[in-house]
Amino acid sequence: MNRRTPPDPSRRSERSRRAILDAALELVAETGYAKLTIEAIAARAGVGKQTIYRWWPSKAAVLFEATVLDRAGGEALDPAAVELPDTGDLEADLKTVLRATVDELNDARLNEPMRALTAETVNDEAFGTAFTEKVLEPQLQAYVRRLRAAQEAGQLDPGVDPRTALELLVGPLFHRWHNRTLPLTHAYADAIVDLALRGLTPRP
Amino acid sequence: MNRRTPPDPSRRSERSRRAILDAALELVAETGYAKLTIEAIAARAGVGKQTIYRWWPSKAAVLFEATVLDRAGGEALDPAAVELPDTGDLEADLKTVLRATVDELNDARLNEPMRALTAETVNDEAFGTAFTEKVLEPQLQAYVRRLRAAQEAGQLDPGVDPRTALELLVGPLFHRWHNRTLPLTHAYADAIVDLALRGLTPRP
Repeated sequence: MNRRTPPDPSRRSERSRRAILDAALELVAETGYAKLTIEAIAARAGVGKQTIYRWWPSKAAVLFEATVLDRAGGEALDPAAVELPDTGDLEADLKTVLRATVDELNDARLNEPMRALTAETVNDEAFGTAFTEKVLEPQLQAYVRRLRAAQEAGQLDPGVDPRTALELLVGPLFHRWHNRTLPLTHAYADAIVDLALRGLTPRP
Repeated sequence: MNRRTPPDPSRRSERSRRAILDAALELVAETGYAKLTIEAIAARAGVGKQTIYRWWPSKAAVLFEATVLDRAGGEALDPAAVELPDTGDLEADLKTVLRATVDELNDARLNEPMRALTAETVNDEAFGTAFTEKVLEPQLQAYVRRLRAAQEAGQLDPGVDPRTALELLVGPLFHRWHNRTLPLTHAYADAIVDLALRGLTPRP
């Protein structure tokens, strides 16, 4: 018989955390957000309801971690850790990033939880404000840093405010995803970058 | 005694319709969308529940009409009736339209129902697709027509696809409204028009 070591509580916690997040993602894909309950997540994950409530205040918070935070390794997003590529070619880097965003928005496994989260952020001001501050704005600030670097390299008009300019890049993608107007493709991501960089009016 | 004329059924219907829409707007502002019920709307409007269900399938549909359709006179949006101004000055016309959109998004009376509707369109694919087809896309096609006219007038690059280009104008405003990142102002609307028309990269 091997000597048993006592279970590592942090490892056990991480296993439960992972099981809860996976259960939430599975269930929301199966039943939709409206029918998702903490009870069902607990049952699927094999934990008690109280375990979930100890860590998260709501089903929205569980999905928030499962879809967004967890992809940053389970940590709250560290603003400095979110960086856009900088190869020195602004156009190419923005196309890389916007194509990756298109892929995420088209990911069937993420679609339902992202829509549920989006509905919560629209409707619930406190939750939405926290989401924007902790998750969205750090990502937008990565655009600001990349656009500032492009200004220093002479690739971006020095009179342009990067914080406003980035919305021309991300706004269209989310508008199309959100409203299901037309397909989200890599060609579309490229077109948005081209239009944003070169503008709509004729160049002399 | 005056001779009584029989009540005009269409006028009576319009009175009930108006009372129901007003009740829905008042209640959603008072209690929020989650607590809004058809029963409460009926009680406030002084009509029976069945009157509401005869005309609308859900509370989302009532609000949809109260916030969007009703502003077009209670009719479904006629695509040809939605037109952007055309003074011959593309920049000025777009600033007029985007400033008006900012005013709508900042309208406290419309904010709660618009957020409720937005959450429904994000989450409910059937409702969202119908909303996009019947309400959103006709408005976007008005942008397409205005941008095409600008192309004919030499004010817009002939190589630009108007259906894609318009998303650079509307996407940023809704991104900011939706995520509550920064204030929606007329100066912001103007900045978006300027950036979209002239582009982010330096002009020679």
